[in-house]
Amino acid sequence: MKHLDTTAPDFETRFAALLDEARETTARVDAAVAGIIADVRARGDAALVDLTARFDAWTPRDASALRVSAEEIEAADARIPPDRRAALNMAAERIEAFHRAQLPADLEMKDAAGLTLGMRWGALDAVGIYVPGGKAAYPSSVLMNAIPARAAGVGRIAMCVPTPGGELNPLVLAAARRAGVTEVYRLGGAQAVAAMAWGTASIAPVDRIVGPGNAYVAEAKRQVFGRVGIDSIAGPSEVVVIADAGNDPRHVAVDLLAQAEHDESAQSILVTPDAALAAAVAAAVEEELRSLPRAAIAAESWRRHGAIVLVRDLDEAAALTNRLAPEHLQLMVEQPRALLAQIRHAGAAFLGRFCPEAVGDYVAGPNHVLPTGRTARFASGLSVFDFLKRTTWVEADAAALAAVGPAAVVLGEAEGLTAHARSVALRLGG
Amino acid sequence: MKHLDTTAPDFETRFAALLDEARETTARVDAAVAGIIADVRARGDAALVDLTARFDAWTPRDASALRVSAEEIEAADARIPPDRRAALNMAAERIEAFHRAQLPADLEMKDAAGLTLGMRWGALDAVGIYVPGGKAAYPSSVLMNAIPARAAGVGRIAMCVPTPGGELNPLVLAAARRAGVTEVYRLGGAQAVAAMAWGTASIAPVDRIVGPGNAYVAEAKRQVFGRVGIDSIAGPSEVVVIADAGNDPRHVAVDLLAQAEHDESAQSILVTPDAALAAAVAAAVEEELRSLPRAAIAAESWRRHGAIVLVRDLDEAAALTNRLAPEHLQLMVEQPRALLAQIRHAGAAFLGRFCPEAVGDYVAGPNHVLPTGRTARFASGLSVFDFLKRTTWVEADAAALAAVGPAAVVLGEAEGLTAHARSVALRLGG
Repeated sequence: MKHLDTTAPDFETRFAALLDEARETTARVDAAVAGIIADVRARGDAALVDLTARFDAWTPRDASALRVSAEEIEAADARIPPDRRAALNMAAERIEAFHRAQLPADLEMKDAAGLTLGMRWGALDAVGIYVPGGKAAYPSSVLMNAIPARAAGVGRIAMCVPTPGGELNPLVLAAARRAGVTEVYRLGGAQAVAAMAWGTASIAPVDRIVGPGNAYVAEAKRQVFGRVGIDSIAGPSEVVVIADAGNDPRHVAVDLLAQAEHDESAQSILVTPDAALAAAVAAAVEEELRSLPRAAIAAESWRRHGAIVLVRDLDEAAALTNRLAPEHLQLMVEQPRALLAQIRHAGAAFLGRFCPEAVGDYVAGPNHVLPTGRTARFASGLSVFDFLKRTTWVEADAAALAAVGPAAVVLGEAEGLTAHARSVALRLGG
Repeated sequence: MKHLDTTAPDFETRFAALLDEARETTARVDAAVAGIIADVRARGDAALVDLTARFDAWTPRDASALRVSAEEIEAADARIPPDRRAALNMAAERIEAFHRAQLPADLEMKDAAGLTLGMRWGALDAVGIYVPGGKAAYPSSVLMNAIPARAAGVGRIAMCVPTPGGELNPLVLAAARRAGVTEVYRLGGAQAVAAMAWGTASIAPVDRIVGPGNAYVAEAKRQVFGRVGIDSIAGPSEVVVIADAGNDPRHVAVDLLAQAEHDESAQSILVTPDAALAAAVAAAVEEELRSLPRAAIAAESWRRHGAIVLVRDLDEAAALTNRLAPEHLQLMVEQPRALLAQIRHAGAAFLGRFCPEAVGDYVAGPNHVLPTGRTARFASGLSVFDFLKRTTWVEADAAALAAVGPAAVVLGEAEGLTAHARSVALRLGG
């Protein structure tokens, strides 16, 4: 873990290094993925069966065995303990309510020239959700990826999840059911992405693919981009906690570790104007690590990427945070709304001393799929906007065309696009 | 040009072939582009000077010569003939008004559990606009790319345009001035994209790069994606015209040619229930080609990619159009709004017999940067949304956490993320 102090002479150098720190090592799997995609395009279902046998340690008897039946999904749901079912239900309802509130309005305006201009939002016809398999199969991710699609009005939501050795987490199926997923396939890797993008006899193609995955899945999404839409490729997760003296150091410490326990590449940064809190949190992190089940991962993340930045005041904290543009931002200060007003770049913010990021990861309502690695400068979290697209439209009659058409003729001719100009001039009687 | 008829037995086969038709040949320039980007990252301004000398046939005396001064921009503007200045002004004002109307509202909601949830839109700090040089330097594209950024509230808008042999279109500079571009550089190709993404001593980095370009520019945008945001890579342009019997065939013919004159890869498709109109339009296209300055390009596009599809009725026209998901769609029918209601997938629609696409290309107001090649199934035209990002936020006090926190604890434990669960439980007194 690094200690930085904005009053130190080498602060700028060290902070710039923190900003540039590469936390991700990308495996080069381009050629392997291109081969898998070509195989799925050429051989369809037969390729899916073969690739599943090769990579997932089970052999589907045929392509129909890839589909998880409605009965299997119901049976899995029935096995969920009541407290988990209640928690899933609360999460699904709250996520749905927030994402429905995001739904934008259409636009229609008639202007002085007599043209009517409009913009209409429409849902995608079909989307694919990729869900990692095995231990990384998180039901909360199923909710966060699929519910915005349903709220947007997408009719067909296909989900692919690898089942290494046949293992499939029943909570994932229960989440899929609550999230409105219409089809579930036991299928993973680049072959799942290829099947969703290009379609096979048993899996109809979709228009957009979202969801996290390993290096093969990420590369496959890159390669099918253009054929279908994709979400951005997520990097390792991160949190910035801005905390003043009025906090319990243990709370801050566990919040930092909640980020660090994701994986060794995760990053947790405390920014505080209070040197005593900084010291107390550093000690509390070590204390908490003693009892944390995922201590090995969290300790490695904290050691390699963690940082405590001592600042002069909260204005300075906000300025540094804008340079970090973190995925998650906790504002554990007396006046969190005033501090939020100074933040320009963050994926999601959590305000107050009783609002740890984990609330947002599971049940608050806003999405937990967020821009990582400083991309919050230009990118946003997953939302209904990922599953909607816009059609703009213009309506003009002869009078409206007479008002604006001559300018179009001038510009068309200026650009040397004579047919453009003529398409207007002809209607103006020219 | 292909003639298709939905009543013909081979219609489905031929329409499917039309859908799958590849109109683009992509040059493989990956390695060359990677080399250019590495050079710009390593040598900064010196690389920009060398690469410009190599590719653009002029040698900047140093990096400061890349910047177009405010005086040069004003001088170029002063040389614009009055009719073109008036047309540019009208276009800029109308585009700005429409894009300002797109600006979305923030969201804030307090729920029954006592949490306050919000979503806040914010502008990007800085964006880069790439503008192709030479003859393809279109002032309308400058307006369409830069004005949405200004309407969104972006403070810094840098524009790069190559000046092969020193040539720079004064209309492009005049458009940049009206669009709120804050910096103009005589710089093109992958080196311009690299400079905007990574920054050099003389060009500060931006957060997102938009605008069309050749294969090198497109590949460079792909390679810097993640470091900065990019817009989608545009393919060849296309139009579908749905026209009933009540149209002047010459109008339809020129509209089809306005698309075809862009380049040989453009595609123009007429869909009509009227065989007589189909025949008359086909004849009128040949007639119009005789006098069109860009006839060679337009004829080649029409011959290779053009199509006339005879349909039973307008319902069928709408269904086929949804499969084509065209970039541009003209609805030259008696009741265009009713037909628009049946269209799910199109980048931009033009309603009525007096609304040729060229009106939208220049002066109507909506953007002319639109999804091509069937990507309107999932993608949208350029808009203020390309220059905004969202921060979601959650505010909770102890009572709100008590209402939703236990569910977060259950889900955190179910996912094996103990520190997540503990960050909530600790605050609940657990």
